[in-house]
Amino acid sequence: MINNAPKFAIVLSGCGVFDGSEIHEAVCTMLAVEESGCTYQCFAPNTWQARTIDHFTGHAVAIAGDEDNRNVLAESARICRGNIKDLSEFKAKDYDAIIFPGGFGAALNLSDFGAKGAECDVNVEVKRAIEESYKEGIVIGAMCIAPTVIARVLGKEGISITIGNDKNVSKGIEKMGAHHENKGATEVCVDSEHKIVTTPCYMLATSLKEIREGTQNLIDEMLELMDY
Amino acid sequence: MINNAPKFAIVLSGCGVFDGSEIHEAVCTMLAVEESGCTYQCFAPNTWQARTIDHFTGHAVAIAGDEDNRNVLAESARICRGNIKDLSEFKAKDYDAIIFPGGFGAALNLSDFGAKGAECDVNVEVKRAIEESYKEGIVIGAMCIAPTVIARVLGKEGISITIGNDKNVSKGIEKMGAHHENKGATEVCVDSEHKIVTTPCYMLATSLKEIREGTQNLIDEMLELMDY
Repeated sequence: MINNAPKFAIVLSGCGVFDGSEIHEAVCTMLAVEESGCTYQCFAPNTWQARTIDHFTGHAVAIAGDEDNRNVLAESARICRGNIKDLSEFKAKDYDAIIFPGGFGAALNLSDFGAKGAECDVNVEVKRAIEESYKEGIVIGAMCIAPTVIARVLGKEGISITIGNDKNVSKGIEKMGAHHENKGATEVCVDSEHKIVTTPCYMLATSLKEIREGTQNLIDEMLELMDY
Repeated sequence: MINNAPKFAIVLSGCGVFDGSEIHEAVCTMLAVEESGCTYQCFAPNTWQARTIDHFTGHAVAIAGDEDNRNVLAESARICRGNIKDLSEFKAKDYDAIIFPGGFGAALNLSDFGAKGAECDVNVEVKRAIEESYKEGIVIGAMCIAPTVIARVLGKEGISITIGNDKNVSKGIEKMGAHHENKGATEVCVDSEHKIVTTPCYMLATSLKEIREGTQNLIDEMLELMDY
């Protein structure tokens, strides 16, 4: 815990909802952190995307192994004007909170939950960051599909999370040992025992305004857990 | 002019400050439009980027003509979850306003002001959209470096715009026939005669919070010109 205003680490997974971080969720998270008087540092794993999607046509233009596939760290840097660090440099003791915006990148690049469900693997640096954050006792936040990554790493601790009300995904979450709570688009699931805070965002939201509200609610609840 | 809530066309130029639309400016614009009770449709020209920049290293990884260079429409689609139209489909009579977020994409892809200054060429569809909007009398908004594109197309009309206080850029703007007004980061230059509204955003801003404020101010002034 740092003495002055809380510092957030924001972990991105690319740039664009279909193969990376959902941009509205990422930007609204940064805005909510700034407007609460706190600071943030963005991180992303230095790894290849599982796939690259043309967001106009919706078709895959490259997959892992292709020469023209994209790098998660380089693409994530677009959302934060280049001010980003390799996730391998993240140290939980330097932050008060760590937060994971959604987008398919969370289920394709941070983990492969999108392909393998409950049996998914988690990127080694993402796994380390979550485990270290949990051990250090800093607050962990996640939105949209990203709580599945937290469930895979910390499910055995009996954590409670939400991804909204999708039956298949919540079943997968329960299989990974976590408890799933149904929530509305801008509602927040607060697990104060494990210091884990989650909200559905675009798993249910239909407007940017709702993302603004949901991310603000998420940051408010995270700050509450820090007694800030 | 449409009878119900104003409809905005938002013209994007890629996805990422160094080779496309500045993402914070684009998202905050969409948010301000939504929060004002208005609606928006995103557009982008279907053309190749002038260059593709690795936003982590800052280095060019492709330039026009390279096979791995990126398409402006496909990249812009990332910022709006795929809900975007080819700018060639834009009809000014269907909208109450048209707005251009900034980022190097405005000076590299919408025009080549970044390379040629006052002698720049403007993408043919961008030029048509601006000319048609002006003739139709809908409100035109632009932020950051994007007002240079408006200046190149409408400078001869004696319009007033701002890009903040950069001496070289404002000199270029005056050369294109427009009048430049120095403004602070979140201030707005309102040319009510020509219905053109501009604000500096990241030409001067140093935080996302300021982008939030500046884009909100811009939308407020645009709505004022529509008597909304």
